[in-house]
Amino acid sequence: MTTLADIETPALLLERDVLARNLERMSARLRDLGVALRPHLKTAKSATIAGLATRGHPGGITVSTLNEAAYFAGHGFRDVTYAVGITPDKLERVASLLRDGATVRVLTDDLDVARAIDERGRRLGVVFPALIEIDSGAHRGGLAPEDLLLPEIARTLAAGPGARLDGVLTHAGHAYDCRGADAIRAVAEQERREVVAAAETLRSAGLACPVVSAGSTPTAVHAERLDGVTEMRPGNYMFFDLYQEGLGACRREDVAISVLASVIGRSPRHGRVLIDAGALALSLDCSAARWSERIGYGALLDAAGRALPGVRLARLHQEHGFVEGAETLPMESLKVGTRVRVLPNHACATAAMHARYHVIDDRGEIVDRWERTGGW
Amino acid sequence: MTTLADIETPALLLERDVLARNLERMSARLRDLGVALRPHLKTAKSATIAGLATRGHPGGITVSTLNEAAYFAGHGFRDVTYAVGITPDKLERVASLLRDGATVRVLTDDLDVARAIDERGRRLGVVFPALIEIDSGAHRGGLAPEDLLLPEIARTLAAGPGARLDGVLTHAGHAYDCRGADAIRAVAEQERREVVAAAETLRSAGLACPVVSAGSTPTAVHAERLDGVTEMRPGNYMFFDLYQEGLGACRREDVAISVLASVIGRSPRHGRVLIDAGALALSLDCSAARWSERIGYGALLDAAGRALPGVRLARLHQEHGFVEGAETLPMESLKVGTRVRVLPNHACATAAMHARYHVIDDRGEIVDRWERTGGW
Repeated sequence: MTTLADIETPALLLERDVLARNLERMSARLRDLGVALRPHLKTAKSATIAGLATRGHPGGITVSTLNEAAYFAGHGFRDVTYAVGITPDKLERVASLLRDGATVRVLTDDLDVARAIDERGRRLGVVFPALIEIDSGAHRGGLAPEDLLLPEIARTLAAGPGARLDGVLTHAGHAYDCRGADAIRAVAEQERREVVAAAETLRSAGLACPVVSAGSTPTAVHAERLDGVTEMRPGNYMFFDLYQEGLGACRREDVAISVLASVIGRSPRHGRVLIDAGALALSLDCSAARWSERIGYGALLDAAGRALPGVRLARLHQEHGFVEGAETLPMESLKVGTRVRVLPNHACATAAMHARYHVIDDRGEIVDRWERTGGW
Repeated sequence: MTTLADIETPALLLERDVLARNLERMSARLRDLGVALRPHLKTAKSATIAGLATRGHPGGITVSTLNEAAYFAGHGFRDVTYAVGITPDKLERVASLLRDGATVRVLTDDLDVARAIDERGRRLGVVFPALIEIDSGAHRGGLAPEDLLLPEIARTLAAGPGARLDGVLTHAGHAYDCRGADAIRAVAEQERREVVAAAETLRSAGLACPVVSAGSTPTAVHAERLDGVTEMRPGNYMFFDLYQEGLGACRREDVAISVLASVIGRSPRHGRVLIDAGALALSLDCSAARWSERIGYGALLDAAGRALPGVRLARLHQEHGFVEGAETLPMESLKVGTRVRVLPNHACATAAMHARYHVIDDRGEIVDRWERTGGW
C-alpha cells in the first residue's frame, strides 16, 4: 500500500472519487438537457481521464493545442475539435492527423484564413473540417452572429473542396466574470442564443450547420436550457478549483486536485512556515483572490485534507511557498517534513505544472498514477 | 537553414550571442572580485548551458530541486549545492547521488533536521555535506548570524559522522525589492556582511567554515566587494528579463530569451489581436508590472526582435494572449499567422513552461536545440 507519506513532494494529487462524481454529474446533466458532452481536455491532458469523461456520450473531445490533438488521437480519440483559432502554417500538422484517420476540426473567424484552409486542403489533398468562431459576449475571438463576414466565411469553407463547413462554436468566457448561479444562468442563455442565431444565419443562407457548439464550465453547470445547441465543451468541471467555488459553479468539496507539499522551514518569530510548493508547483495563478484576499495562492489543508484555518499562502518563489499567519497554528504540528496540501486557485494552471497525477482514494491511499501530456 | 518561420509556435527562443555575453560578463566580474561562480541552474535547467556558465570557474553548480541535482550529476556536474531547505525524507535520494560519487550539499536552518541529517547519514552509510542557511535580510529562510541556534546546529552537523559541516549560505532575495544600482549595492554589502558574520561565529566556536556562499543576480551584478565570501550563486543573469531591467540589473538588450508566437485572431473593432502565447507559454508572472503598468504580461516585439510600441499584452488565457492597443499598429501587418516575440517578465518562470530552447544566432537563424529538465 502506497500512501501520501511515501511519495516525493511537491506532487499533484487527484481524488478518484471526487473526479468520478464531477464527471458523472456533468454527463447526466447534459444528457438530461439533450446535448452531447464534448469534454475539453485542456485541463486534464490525460487519455485515462478522457476515457472516463466521455462515457455515456459520443466520444468526441475538445483540445487546446495540436500536441493534445496528436496525443489523444494516438490514444484512440478520433473525433477532436481544436478550439483555438488556427493559423495557416499549422494546417500541415492537422492534415497528417486527418490522413491517419482522425477527424480534427479547426476553428477560424477570419476570411483570409478560411481561404487558406481551403487552399491548403486542396494542395495537401485533404478536406479540413472547420468551425466558425462566434463571439457570444466574451469578446475574445469570434464574430457576432450578425457580422456580414459570417456568411462569407461560411460560404468559403462550405464551397471546398479543401475545406468543409461543420458548424459554429462559441465559448462564454465572460461567465468567469459572473458571481452566483443567476448571473451565470443569464450568460448561459446569452451563449446559447448567440450561437444558435449564428447557426440560423448560416441555414438561412442555405448552408448546413450540423455542429452548434457552446460551453464553459460555469455555463454548463448552470444552463437551464440548451435548445438548438448540439454539444457543450466544459473542461475545468472535472477538477474544479477555488475560482469556480467563488463563482458559484461548485462547492469546496468538489475540488478534485491538490498539490502535496512538505514544510521545508519555519520561523516561529515571523509566524511563517515555508513549503516546497512554489510558483512551479502551483503556478502563479491568484485568480481566486478576486473572491477573497484570504485565499492567496491556494487554500492550505493538512495531509488528510482537512482545512488549516487562519493561514494564508501569501507569496510564492520558484520552489518556496510562504505560509503566513502560522502563529495561529500549533507550530509543533508543522515541523520540517510535515505534509500539507494546497487546493488550487485554477486547476488548469496548476495541473499544467505537473507531468502526472497521483490518484488517491478516499482514505488517501495512492491507487494509480496517470501521465499527462503538455507542450505544443 | 532553419529560421523562425519554420518552427511551430509557441516556442521558446534563446539568443546565443546574448547568452554568451551575459555569461562572460558575470564570469569575469566574479573572477575580478576573487570569488567562485557557482551558477544557479534553476533558471536554465540545461546541461549545455551549465557547461557554458561554469567555464573559467571551478565547475560547481547550484540547483533548486533534487531532479535537477540528479540530472546535472548525470551530465557530469559532480559538485552540486541544493539550495532549498532539505527535509529528512529527501535524504535517501541525496544519499544515492552521493554513493554515485557526486557531492550534493544540503541546506538547513533547523536543529531537528540537522540531527536527522546526521542520523540518516549514519543509517545509510554516507556523510551528508551540509550548509546552514543564513538570513541576510530577505526573511525567507535562514538564521540571523547572531541566532544562538546557529552554533548549536553547526556543532550537530560538524560532529558527524553522518553529516559534515561545509559552511554557510545566504540569498539576498530582498534585492528584488530594490530599485537602482545604489540600493542593490547596499543589499549586496548587507548580504556579504551577514553571511561573513555567520562564518565568523562558527570559526569562533572552533568550527571550520570553508564555504561562505552568497548571491542573487542583482547582488552579483552590483556588489562592490565580496571579501570573506567564497562563491556567488546567481542564475537569472544568464537570460535576464523585464523585471531585472526595471530593477536596474540589466538593459533591455541583455534579455536573452523570448517566446515566439503567432497571431491567431484579430479584432480591428476592439483594437485587439490574439496570439497563441497564453498563460502556459509565458507563465502568469506579471512581476514587471511593478515597474510599469504598460508592461502587462511581457513586451511585444516583431519576429525580427524590434519593439512593437504602443501595444500591451494585457491578459492571458490558457492558450490565448490578448494584445491590446493594436489600433496604433497597422492591422495589415498583424494578419493571422504573423509571427511576434514576447520578452518575459520573469525568465525563470517563462522558461519553466517549455521543454526546450530554440537557439538562434543574431540573424534569427536556428542554430541548435537544447533540452531542458523539469519537475521534481
